[in-house]
Amino acid sequence: MISSGGKQRVIITDVNPRVEDGLFPAKAVLGERLKISASIFGDGHDEVAANAYIKHESETEWAELPMQFVINDYWEATFQAEKLGFFEFRIEAWEDHYTTWKKGLKKKFEAGQDVAVEIQIGIELLEDAAAISPKDKEALLDVTSAFKKDVTPLQTVTLALSDQVAALMYAYRHPDMITVYPATYRIEIERKKAAYSTWYELFPRSTSEQEGRHGTFKDVTRLLPRVAHMGFDVLYFPPIHPIGEKNRKGKNNSLTAGPDDPGSPWAIGNRLGGHKAIHPELGTLDDFKALVAEVKKYNIEIAMDIAYQCAPDHPYVKEHPQWFKWRPDGTVQYAENPPKKYEDILPFNFETDDWENLWQELKSVIEYWIAAGITIFRIDNPHTKAFAFWQWMIGEVRQNHPEVLFLAEAFTRPRVMERLGKAGFNQSYTYFTWRNTKYELQEYMHELTRTEMRWYYRPNFWPNTPDILPPILTYGGENAHIMRLILAATLSSNYGLYGPVYELGLNTPHGKKEEYVDNEKYEIKHWDWHKYTRTAEVMTRLNRIRKQNPALQSTWNIEFADTTNYQLICYGKRDEERGNTMIMAVNLDVFNTQGGHVNLPLDKLGIDPDRPYQVHDLLSGDRYTWQGAWNFVQLNPYQMPAHVFRVEQ
Amino acid sequence: MISSGGKQRVIITDVNPRVEDGLFPAKAVLGERLKISASIFGDGHDEVAANAYIKHESETEWAELPMQFVINDYWEATFQAEKLGFFEFRIEAWEDHYTTWKKGLKKKFEAGQDVAVEIQIGIELLEDAAAISPKDKEALLDVTSAFKKDVTPLQTVTLALSDQVAALMYAYRHPDMITVYPATYRIEIERKKAAYSTWYELFPRSTSEQEGRHGTFKDVTRLLPRVAHMGFDVLYFPPIHPIGEKNRKGKNNSLTAGPDDPGSPWAIGNRLGGHKAIHPELGTLDDFKALVAEVKKYNIEIAMDIAYQCAPDHPYVKEHPQWFKWRPDGTVQYAENPPKKYEDILPFNFETDDWENLWQELKSVIEYWIAAGITIFRIDNPHTKAFAFWQWMIGEVRQNHPEVLFLAEAFTRPRVMERLGKAGFNQSYTYFTWRNTKYELQEYMHELTRTEMRWYYRPNFWPNTPDILPPILTYGGENAHIMRLILAATLSSNYGLYGPVYELGLNTPHGKKEEYVDNEKYEIKHWDWHKYTRTAEVMTRLNRIRKQNPALQSTWNIEFADTTNYQLICYGKRDEERGNTMIMAVNLDVFNTQGGHVNLPLDKLGIDPDRPYQVHDLLSGDRYTWQGAWNFVQLNPYQMPAHVFRVEQ
Repeated sequence: MISSGGKQRVIITDVNPRVEDGLFPAKAVLGERLKISASIFGDGHDEVAANAYIKHESETEWAELPMQFVINDYWEATFQAEKLGFFEFRIEAWEDHYTTWKKGLKKKFEAGQDVAVEIQIGIELLEDAAAISPKDKEALLDVTSAFKKDVTPLQTVTLALSDQVAALMYAYRHPDMITVYPATYRIEIERKKAAYSTWYELFPRSTSEQEGRHGTFKDVTRLLPRVAHMGFDVLYFPPIHPIGEKNRKGKNNSLTAGPDDPGSPWAIGNRLGGHKAIHPELGTLDDFKALVAEVKKYNIEIAMDIAYQCAPDHPYVKEHPQWFKWRPDGTVQYAENPPKKYEDILPFNFETDDWENLWQELKSVIEYWIAAGITIFRIDNPHTKAFAFWQWMIGEVRQNHPEVLFLAEAFTRPRVMERLGKAGFNQSYTYFTWRNTKYELQEYMHELTRTEMRWYYRPNFWPNTPDILPPILTYGGENAHIMRLILAATLSSNYGLYGPVYELGLNTPHGKKEEYVDNEKYEIKHWDWHKYTRTAEVMTRLNRIRKQNPALQSTWNIEFADTTNYQLICYGKRDEERGNTMIMAVNLDVFNTQGGHVNLPLDKLGIDPDRPYQVHDLLSGDRYTWQGAWNFVQLNPYQMPAHVFRVEQ
Repeated sequence: MISSGGKQRVIITDVNPRVEDGLFPAKAVLGERLKISASIFGDGHDEVAANAYIKHESETEWAELPMQFVINDYWEATFQAEKLGFFEFRIEAWEDHYTTWKKGLKKKFEAGQDVAVEIQIGIELLEDAAAISPKDKEALLDVTSAFKKDVTPLQTVTLALSDQVAALMYAYRHPDMITVYPATYRIEIERKKAAYSTWYELFPRSTSEQEGRHGTFKDVTRLLPRVAHMGFDVLYFPPIHPIGEKNRKGKNNSLTAGPDDPGSPWAIGNRLGGHKAIHPELGTLDDFKALVAEVKKYNIEIAMDIAYQCAPDHPYVKEHPQWFKWRPDGTVQYAENPPKKYEDILPFNFETDDWENLWQELKSVIEYWIAAGITIFRIDNPHTKAFAFWQWMIGEVRQNHPEVLFLAEAFTRPRVMERLGKAGFNQSYTYFTWRNTKYELQEYMHELTRTEMRWYYRPNFWPNTPDILPPILTYGGENAHIMRLILAATLSSNYGLYGPVYELGLNTPHGKKEEYVDNEKYEIKHWDWHKYTRTAEVMTRLNRIRKQNPALQSTWNIEFADTTNYQLICYGKRDEERGNTMIMAVNLDVFNTQGGHVNLPLDKLGIDPDRPYQVHDLLSGDRYTWQGAWNFVQLNPYQMPAHVFRVEQ
């Protein structure tokens, strides 16, 4: 027995966006121009046509998006979502007999051949369409009448090829000949900040004006104008909970803390409370809520650090001993993220039989802080907790709070980092921190923007973190700080840094480790928040440039230019809709002036190859007149290691 | 409510072989060493373990294949099928707590730390295993007793790390903590000829010893020793059915045939019968059956050409007019495969309401010839017939006759050719015919062997066909014929050519077309079958070399070497199991001697980088002693455009 569907001649395949065969949704943000695409083709040489259908999960009506042929059987439709949450889409395609006929008619007519039989076939098509389309029946039969009249071939052909008839025949297809792609796929629409954000990390306890005093949320308030002036829109705090007193770490990660050592904020919980409490020296819950409200006045949001782990004196340890893995000697093995050891931290046991209650409690932590006004969470070491938990927790939270964003702080193996993106994290830390050469950077950007990762993994580029002082910042000094900052801010639309260490250019490592010596993780610092540095100045300018140029508000529009110097990296970004084009050229050599020619992909940057154009360096103010693809740049790292050009035609 | 599965901490993804998300089976042949692979990882840093399970569709028991970690969370298991038909496989993975424990124990012990608590944990694991494994309970408890005895830590650790305990604990896992990958995928196992075959195409009507006489199946019998001596194992005939008399083509594709013109064999059917009849001048059905039996004595199979199309006087046209698309003037539009026009052929209308009967009839054609002894079908222009038909027909036929192979003769757009492979064709024609430069050849081989195509598309490389005389053969003469032959026969394990035109080096095009002038498609030829030519000599040697060197019996083991000359292409192939390694170096310049260095991927070719090795040119007999990756070659195309080396250490 033959199954049905023998007359469905069109094939639909390679549908995108599609993440892991549709197991996970693709990600996009409000207003983003999204391509729904597929390979679509029939046997033989007849014309085909296709529609994408899309709807928000809360709707019942599908919107119809006619798909356009692009090249080599690849078709696409553009979609711009204006609503948060999950959309689903599907694709249908069919043999477009009217267009096939129309093209044949045109060819014969233009070759001067007799088209009488062709016109007859056209009439049959129109009559068939009328028979199956009650709505358009009358209009269709009017056209056939016109065909049947004794008019000139030219008049008939003109009518046949008219937009009016095309519009009528667009809907013409027999249901049993339509190929319906068997799967629907989902796209999660998030708010714009998921794709474009600028993060500044500071330790609130180091914000006091007075050296030796513990900083408070009120001290942070004093710094907000600076953070806002510098152009950051996410202010990220390490954990603000009570810090464990048992096994507390001392300065430089030493195993014994002195009486005045404040401990690591990631060793969460003590007799005063755990993940839902606030470290008393920072202030009260009300102080915190007041700060959360205050930052919003600056169009900044606070990102809160959630580290699902416990100091040995965290209340959970006594209240829920079943959530930990006890050893025969009555201890719990401390947490590790090789090669790092966290002697002051106990991990949860995600294999506990009581995992449902554990999951619920962990979710309630997020909900607690959402109620306090928090909308962004930076999750500490998510790769050491069960993937299934993240997928469930983030899904549950975002169902009620689709505005809430999660950043995955996973620096681990590629497959693991990818999976966290699929599981629902809206942004992710990356390997950018260690990618220094032109080859490395280009390959990595390709992986992030031209593979399936494009759909589920939103990179957030950090040149440093409290945990990571990469070698380039150590040996390259201020020049390297500026160069890496420019790369982060222009390669990725999401970027952040750990300050004020970064602006101040502190770069002494702890022995041979790629970590800061005298790390703020274990001590309270007193910073000169208002010192002028080249790095702070470039930071401020860069963030303004990002705000004013939508081309820099996407990571996925990057196009690399060949250069004749391997120390010179060059790339462009274009916002098609708003006609904004940026070209960046960066000297990767932190000590020497480097120059070379760049070969710009003009077509992808919307630049006319036959007319001169002006490139306006928004960092320096300089302007150059260029023409064509090949142009020369030269950059002195002691002056400014990069051009950040806007194209002004 | 949380769904179940919260304790399944291991992720399985990117499972292969998998074709179009599992919609189609992957292909392999009997005895082929097949890698079943996946990315497998857990959260955190515990050890994981995984099994693949595989079974033939006719079986109920799954064979268990332990998977091995390779690199970067990529795991694989090797499978060699010994049965034709469909296998299905699935993957399971879990946290391997015993191995995690064992590694920690070893580390602590070697660092001289106290392992008493570790031993206690080990005892708990063993007792837990005993509790859930009745079969091994006694043996497991014996081990715990040994642990509990007052022996030295060294003795305990040695026992803990022993293979004996590892074997016992291998099966230890709690069912609710096993991740079962939700999909099973299929692999179709075919006979070896699907992956390794050597085709020779000839027109039986041109085989008469006597000029001017129509060749017969008996004439073909006379040529079999030659075909066998030259090393071919598939003898492919153009259609052997009665040729249409209506609209018959004359010489050089002219629209009017003279009274003696035999017509194109692809214009099938006349008053004497259609697809199940034999052109009387070739012989009777019994003659044909006798030939089919005779060729088998030479270990050759006949490949029959099936062209699903009809001359206007084919019996189908009168008997089943509903299978054709009639125009208002009472004609059927002739077939086209742009830019080619087939005025002597009517296509079937796959949109006919009577499609089920059409499909059944077309399938019965295949079954008719299978009954006559045919096991290989070359299908003409499959891309102009419905994809759904092929998938159904090939599936149905191979269910009863898994030995039957289908070659898709589609020279069309990439997505269309790919789909035919997915739909079930065992071999496919390719773009090799037009890929000439090093870049083109390497890119194309990458596409065929390193993308998803590796699993469903078996290339068959043809340097020429009766339809295609590529420019390189026209301008490059005999040198080009030899060079292209060597490429086809060593790049691809399936290759074929249209002879004796090829050995004789005929290469005059028809005007500006890439076709032979005075094409055998429209006339009966008289060939000198026994003329000595360099091309025929190389062909004979090459086919023997392929037979004697299993490395050349696969297409998917290819590894390219860098060369310092863009006219010089170099690649190796290795059969791991039989330790056979071949290295090919080919001069792509048909007029000039070219030399250069090649940089061999020694590790992939199984060559020791520290010892000299001999490369033995099996075409010329020459031997060279090489060492290391970089070696020099120089090739004169008038002598021999290639080395075909066997590595002899």
